[in-house]
Amino acid sequence: MSTPLLQPAEQGQRYELFSPTAMPRAAGFLWNQRMMIQATCRGYAVAQFMQPEPAKYAYAPNLEAKTFMQPEQPYYAHHPGRFFYVKDEETGEIFSAPYEPVRASYEAYCFSVGKSDLCWTLQALGIEIELTLSLPVADVVELWEVKVTNRSSRARRISVYPYFPVGYMSWMNQSAEYRADLGGIVASCVTPYQKVADHFKNKFFKDKTFFLHEKIPAAWEAKQETFEGEGGLHNPSALQAELLQGGDARYETPAAVLQYRLELAAGAAENYRFIFGPAFDEDEIKKIRATYLTAQAFAKAKAEYAAYVASGSGCLQIETPDAELNNFVNHWLPRQVFYHGDVNRLTTDPQTRNYLQDNMGMTFIKPQVTRAAFLHALSQQEASGAMPDGILLSEEAELKYINQIPHTDHCVWLPVCLKTYLDETNDYALLDELVVGHDGKTLSVFERISNAMRWLLHARDYRGLSFIAQGDWCDPMNMVGYKGKGVSGWLSVATAYALNLWAEVCSKKAQEKLRDEFSAGAREINAAVNQYLWDGEWFGRGITDDDVVFGVSKDDEGRIFLNPQSWAILGGAANEEQRAKMIAAIEQQLETPYGVAMLAPAYTAMRDDVGRVTQKHPGSAENGSVYNHAAVFYIYSLFAIAEQSPAHADKAYKLLRQMIPGPSEADYLQRGQLPVYIPNYYRGAYHQYPRTAGRSSQLFNTGTVSWVYRCLVEGLFGLQGCEQGLRVAPQIPSNWAQAKARREFRGATFYLVISRGDVDQLMLSCNGERLADNCVRNIEAGREYHLEVVLPAVAG
Amino acid sequence: MSTPLLQPAEQGQRYELFSPTAMPRAAGFLWNQRMMIQATCRGYAVAQFMQPEPAKYAYAPNLEAKTFMQPEQPYYAHHPGRFFYVKDEETGEIFSAPYEPVRASYEAYCFSVGKSDLCWTLQALGIEIELTLSLPVADVVELWEVKVTNRSSRARRISVYPYFPVGYMSWMNQSAEYRADLGGIVASCVTPYQKVADHFKNKFFKDKTFFLHEKIPAAWEAKQETFEGEGGLHNPSALQAELLQGGDARYETPAAVLQYRLELAAGAAENYRFIFGPAFDEDEIKKIRATYLTAQAFAKAKAEYAAYVASGSGCLQIETPDAELNNFVNHWLPRQVFYHGDVNRLTTDPQTRNYLQDNMGMTFIKPQVTRAAFLHALSQQEASGAMPDGILLSEEAELKYINQIPHTDHCVWLPVCLKTYLDETNDYALLDELVVGHDGKTLSVFERISNAMRWLLHARDYRGLSFIAQGDWCDPMNMVGYKGKGVSGWLSVATAYALNLWAEVCSKKAQEKLRDEFSAGAREINAAVNQYLWDGEWFGRGITDDDVVFGVSKDDEGRIFLNPQSWAILGGAANEEQRAKMIAAIEQQLETPYGVAMLAPAYTAMRDDVGRVTQKHPGSAENGSVYNHAAVFYIYSLFAIAEQSPAHADKAYKLLRQMIPGPSEADYLQRGQLPVYIPNYYRGAYHQYPRTAGRSSQLFNTGTVSWVYRCLVEGLFGLQGCEQGLRVAPQIPSNWAQAKARREFRGATFYLVISRGDVDQLMLSCNGERLADNCVRNIEAGREYHLEVVLPAVAG
Repeated sequence: MSTPLLQPAEQGQRYELFSPTAMPRAAGFLWNQRMMIQATCRGYAVAQFMQPEPAKYAYAPNLEAKTFMQPEQPYYAHHPGRFFYVKDEETGEIFSAPYEPVRASYEAYCFSVGKSDLCWTLQALGIEIELTLSLPVADVVELWEVKVTNRSSRARRISVYPYFPVGYMSWMNQSAEYRADLGGIVASCVTPYQKVADHFKNKFFKDKTFFLHEKIPAAWEAKQETFEGEGGLHNPSALQAELLQGGDARYETPAAVLQYRLELAAGAAENYRFIFGPAFDEDEIKKIRATYLTAQAFAKAKAEYAAYVASGSGCLQIETPDAELNNFVNHWLPRQVFYHGDVNRLTTDPQTRNYLQDNMGMTFIKPQVTRAAFLHALSQQEASGAMPDGILLSEEAELKYINQIPHTDHCVWLPVCLKTYLDETNDYALLDELVVGHDGKTLSVFERISNAMRWLLHARDYRGLSFIAQGDWCDPMNMVGYKGKGVSGWLSVATAYALNLWAEVCSKKAQEKLRDEFSAGAREINAAVNQYLWDGEWFGRGITDDDVVFGVSKDDEGRIFLNPQSWAILGGAANEEQRAKMIAAIEQQLETPYGVAMLAPAYTAMRDDVGRVTQKHPGSAENGSVYNHAAVFYIYSLFAIAEQSPAHADKAYKLLRQMIPGPSEADYLQRGQLPVYIPNYYRGAYHQYPRTAGRSSQLFNTGTVSWVYRCLVEGLFGLQGCEQGLRVAPQIPSNWAQAKARREFRGATFYLVISRGDVDQLMLSCNGERLADNCVRNIEAGREYHLEVVLPAVAG
Repeated sequence: MSTPLLQPAEQGQRYELFSPTAMPRAAGFLWNQRMMIQATCRGYAVAQFMQPEPAKYAYAPNLEAKTFMQPEQPYYAHHPGRFFYVKDEETGEIFSAPYEPVRASYEAYCFSVGKSDLCWTLQALGIEIELTLSLPVADVVELWEVKVTNRSSRARRISVYPYFPVGYMSWMNQSAEYRADLGGIVASCVTPYQKVADHFKNKFFKDKTFFLHEKIPAAWEAKQETFEGEGGLHNPSALQAELLQGGDARYETPAAVLQYRLELAAGAAENYRFIFGPAFDEDEIKKIRATYLTAQAFAKAKAEYAAYVASGSGCLQIETPDAELNNFVNHWLPRQVFYHGDVNRLTTDPQTRNYLQDNMGMTFIKPQVTRAAFLHALSQQEASGAMPDGILLSEEAELKYINQIPHTDHCVWLPVCLKTYLDETNDYALLDELVVGHDGKTLSVFERISNAMRWLLHARDYRGLSFIAQGDWCDPMNMVGYKGKGVSGWLSVATAYALNLWAEVCSKKAQEKLRDEFSAGAREINAAVNQYLWDGEWFGRGITDDDVVFGVSKDDEGRIFLNPQSWAILGGAANEEQRAKMIAAIEQQLETPYGVAMLAPAYTAMRDDVGRVTQKHPGSAENGSVYNHAAVFYIYSLFAIAEQSPAHADKAYKLLRQMIPGPSEADYLQRGQLPVYIPNYYRGAYHQYPRTAGRSSQLFNTGTVSWVYRCLVEGLFGLQGCEQGLRVAPQIPSNWAQAKARREFRGATFYLVISRGDVDQLMLSCNGERLADNCVRNIEAGREYHLEVVLPAVAG
C-alpha cells in the first residue's frame, strides 16, 4: 500500500508528512507569549525566548552570531534538535526518532503538524515511538510526551534514550550534571560580557538549561563528547555500553541524555513526559517542575494552549469549491496572522512598517490590540512628523540591525493600515485620542497622522518625487539615494496612495482644507511620477543620486519592478490604459509558476548605484524572488480594480493560490514546506535558475499574511466594512458557481451564500429581504444575518 | 609491534602522533605574514587571513559569531576541515583521510607536525594516503600535496575524493560551481552589511573561495547537501554513485569535492596537488594558479617558507641533560616567539601589554622589529602619559572587544619590556629618538616613558595603591574598581617594579633627579602595599570599591593570587622573610602537577565585588587555571633571587618544565597537546576537578613565550647583556652536571660550556683565559667566543 507523501488530516486541523527524507526542511512552529519553536520533521529545532531580547537555551555547537531571523538557514549534524534513540537490547540495533541523527529506515512514519502541537509517529525494529511537543501559554518550557509501543509479536527488551543536545553555551563558563534532587540534567553557563554595564543586565538571564524527567531513568550522561564518542551522532559510542556513564561536563559542551531500560510485552506501551527549557536558578527549575511535570498538568497546559490559539481564529470562515483554500483560510492563515499580532515576531523593536501591518492583521482577530498598537506607535513619532525606523516595545529596547539604517517609507503605512481598522470597527473616535509623544507634544491621532502626511509631502526632491535615503520599505536598495538625492518611484506612488486615503478620512472628519491639501499633493506626485518615471509600458523603480532612472526597459537586469506598478494602481498614478500595459508587462516578465517576482531579470552582479538588492543572491529575498509581501500588493491592487474587469479577479485569485503552499506532492517537493503558513518568499529567478525556483524561505515572519487576509475579506469575499455598515461585493473567480462564508463583524455574525444567476449585476438579500444596494446597514451586535448574493452568470 | 602514541621524529624537527583517536585536539599550526591555520590530526582546521581584519574562507555551517580567539573551542561533525575520501571501486568500502569524517580504522597512521609543514600518512584498505599542507610566505593559499600509494599486493581500482567544505558563507549571497576554465571549484559570496559605509570596505573583500586542481578530475560536486545526502558526512550518498553529479550551489551551502578514478598496480603511486584559499576575483584566482600550482612552484614555496621560519630561530641553542627541553628551546619555542612578534597574533589592535611583550620576545630574534614596535606604540601614547588599551597597527584599525574596556596596567610594560631590548642591544640611542604622538607633541622615547611612569604614580588612591578601574593586565577582575575607588595589589607592586627599572635607566642617563623621584615612588608604593595588603603569609590581591581586601587568608575562594607575590619579589615589596613565607604558601596552595595556578581555590560562584574572574569556569582561564603567563612571572622572579638560594633555581627549573608540553603519553593524553607550543593555560582547579586539570587551552597566543625565552636567557643560562657586555651567570638545576649553549649576542657568537668543579663560586674563562668577574667585555661583532663556566659542585 502506497501512502501519499503528504496529506491533510482532520480537514484543516493538521498536516501530515509521510517521509522525513523527501525534504529535510518540512517544519511546524509553535509559539507562546514568550517563546517560539520551529521544529522540523527530522527533529532539528530552533527555539528562542525573550529575556527581554531573543535568547536561546539550546545552542549551536559553536559560537553562533546573534542575528535577525535568516531565511533558508541550513541544518547540519550538530544543529540543535530533540532526539530519542532506541536500542534493541538483544541485537544492539539502534534507530532514532524522529529521524536524525541515525536516519534509519522506518516501517511507518508520520510527522503531523497541528495548530497547537507537533507530533511524530514512527516505527522501526517493531517499536513504535510517538512524540508530542506542546507549549504552555505563558512559560518558556517545552512539554514532551513520548509513547513507546511494542508493535512486534513478542516481548522486547529495549533502551530508550532521550538526547537533547544543549550545545556550546558560553566561552566563559559552561557545565552540566545530573541532579537527582531536581530530577534531571541541569546545564549552566554564564552569558559572556565585556562591558561592566552588561553584567547588570546579564545577571538576571536564565543561564540554566534543564531537561527534567517524570520517571527516574536507569542512567544518564551530561557531556556531549562522552555520549557521542568515536561512533558519532549517528551511532553514539555511549549506546554500545549497557548503561550510560553518568558523566558531567566541566567547561565542556553539555548534553542531556537519559536512558530508560524497558521490557515490553507484545503490544505493551510505556509513556514518558519530559520538560526542557531555560531557568534562572534551581528554585525556578523546581517551580516549573511542580507546575508542569504531571499527566494532569500536561493536559491542562495543552487545553489552555489550544484555547489560546483558538482565540486567534479570525473573522472569516469560508466554504468554496477550493478545498485547500478553505482549509488554509479557516485554520492556518489566522493562526499566522495571530502570531504576528500577538508577539510581534518576538522582537523588541519591530520595524515600524512591520509593526503597523502586523497589527493591521490583528484587526481581524482582536481589534483592540490594533488600536493600542497605533497609539503606541504614534507616541514614538518624531517632532518632524517622521516615524522612527522601529517601534520600541519596552523601556530597555533599542533599535538594532536594519532599524539603524534610515528608511523613508514608514509614514506611508499609517493611513494604509489604519483604513482596515476604521473599516472594520468604525471607531473614528480613535482619531481624537490624544497621544503624548517622545517629541514632548500632546497631539491627537488625527493631528499626528496629518503631520506624518506633511512629512511625506516635504520629503521630496525638486521634481516632486520622494527621497529614498538608504532605503524604502525593506533594505534592498540602499545605494540609490544615500547621498541624499536619489528618489523612489515606489515610495512616490505609495505616498500618493497614503495621501488619498488620508484625504478621505479628512473628508469624513469634515476637514476640507486638509483634504484638499493632501489630495492636491497626491495629484502633484502622480503627475511627477508620470512625467519622470513612466517608461512607456510600466513605471520605473526610481532615480539614483546621479540621475539614472532604473527599473526601466533599457536595463538588462532589474528591468521591471512589481511594487511601483501595484501602488500606482492603488494610488491613482496609472490610468486605465497604463494599467492594461502594466498588467501585460507583469504577466510577461514577472509571473512565474510560483508567483509574481518582485523584479526581473534578477541582478547577477553588483550595481553600485542601486545597492544591496544586487548583492543578494539572484532568486533570494528581494533579488528576483517571489517576494510575497510585494506579490500580495499586486493581488490587492487587482482586486481593487476587479469590479471593472472580472479578468482581474480571476488573475488575483490565481496569484493568491500560488502564494499558498500547496498540498500536492509536486508542490511540496519543490517548495519544501508544509501548507501551514505563507513564507516571506519563494525563490524566483525562474528563468535563470529553474532548479531552485519556487523553494520556500521557510521564514514565517512576513507582512504578507495580514494583506492576504485583507484580500480575502475585502477582495475575494468583498465583505468590507464602511461607515454605514457592511459592503458586500464578492469577486470570486469566474469558474466558481457558488461559495459560502461566515463573517464576524462589529459583534454580529453574517452567513453569506454566493451563487450565480440570471442577474445583470450583484443582487443582495439579507435575512430573505432584497436590499436596494450592496450595503447591509443598521447592524446590531449579537444578531445573525443571512446574506444571499447572486452574481451574474459568467458567459460560458 | 606496538608503536608509541607520540614521539619526536628527527630530533626537534617534527612531532609524530600515531593515533588520531587518542585526543581529538592534537593540532599543529602554520602561519605566514597574512594568514594562520591550525589543523588537527583529524582534519579539522581553523584558518584566518587579514583583509585587513581577520577573515575566513572556509566557514562554519551556520552564521558564526566574529570573536577573539577562544580557548578549548569544540569541534563537531560539520566543523571546517580538509578531507580526502577514498572508495574501493570493487567493494564500495570507503575511508577518509586524515580521520574525519569516516573515522575508519587504519592499518597505519601518523600525524606529523613540522615547523614548516603538517603531514599525515595513513593506510586503510591497503591504500596509503600521504597528505602534506604547507603555506607560501606571503600569499593566502594552502598548498596541499597528496600521494596515493597502493600498498596491497594486487592492482586496485579506487576513487579519491578531496572534500573541502566551504560552509555557510553568507546569508546575503552564496553559490559555487565547477569552473573548467579556472581548473577547480569556485565558491562566491557577498559579505553581508547593513550600513552603507561598510559597503565601501567590503567591496574589496576576497569573497571567493577557490579549490584548484592540477590534474583534471573525473567528476565534481559543488553543493554540500548533494554530496552528503542521507548518508551523512561519515558515508556520503554521493560516493555511492559511480560519479559525482556535478551539481552547483545556488544560495545553498557550497562545498568543493572532486573525484579521481585510479587504477593502481601493486606498489604504484599517484601524486596530486591542490590549492585552497580566498580571492577577490577570477583574475586573482588565475594569478594564484599560475604562481603556485606546479611541482616546481610547490617546491620553491616550501623552500622559501622553511627559510622564513628559520629566520626566526632565535639567539640561543642549548644542549643539556634534558633532551626534551633542548628540543623545545632549540626548535619550537623561538618559532612560537617569532609568530607573536612577526604577525602580532593576526590582530590589527593588539592589547598594548601584549604588543610590548610580544615584541620584547622579538628582541631575541629580530631586535630591529622590537625597536620599531616601541616607537610605534609610544606614538599612540595619550597626553596624560597613559598608554591606550590597544595599539592600532593600521589606519583603518580600531579598538575592539576587550580593548574597549579601560585597564590601568599598560604603562607598566614599557620599562619592563624595554629592559630586555636595552640589555640585548645596548641601544640606548633609542631613548633619544623623537616620537610624534597622537597627542600632537614631539617627545623623546625617554620623556614619553618618564611621563608614563608619572601617570602610574598619579593613578593611585589616598593609600598610595594603584587604581584597577575595570581591570589590570587581563580581563578577569572587572568589578573590583569600576566605581573608581578599588585598587590592585598586583598593579601596585608591578608599578614599583616598573619605577625601579626606569630609575636605573634614569641613572644611566645621568638623570639623578628623575631617578630619585621614581625610586622614591617605588619605595612609597611598596610601603603602602605592606601596610594595606600584607596578609601575614602573602600579599592580598586588591581592595574593592567598598574597601574589602580580597585574595587573603580569610577568603574561602580566591584566597591567594600568584601575581602579587611574583611581582612583589621583582619590585622589592617583599623582604627575605616575606619571600620565604610567600614561596611556602605558593607551594602549598598553588602548585599542582600541571604547574602553578594563578589563584586558589578557584571561585565557584559569582562574587559581585570581584567580577568576571568569578564567572569564568573554575579551572578555565584566569579562574584557578595554570595561567602560564602568570606562572612564568613567578618562575622569572625565582630566577631573579636564585643567586641567593640554589633551591630557587631548582624550583624555577621544575616549574618551567611543567609548562612545556611533555612528550610522554601520559602527559599528552592529559593535556591533549603536542609539545610544539606553550598554550596560554592548562586547566587548574586541580583539587576541585581532577578529571580536567592539566588540559591545554589549545591557544598558542600568549605573552608567556617571550618570558620563557627570557627565563632561559637571563635565568637558566644566565647570558644577559649589560652595558659592558655579556654577563654570565647560569642557574642550572643542581642535578645537572653540565650543559652547553650557543648564544648569538650583539653580532658575536658565544659557545658556552658549563660544568661543575671544585670552586667556591662561578669561574668564567673566555677563549681559554680566566676572567676576573662574570662579565665578557669588549665584544666584537663577527667574532666567536668560547666560554667555560665552572660552577660549584652541589653537595651530594
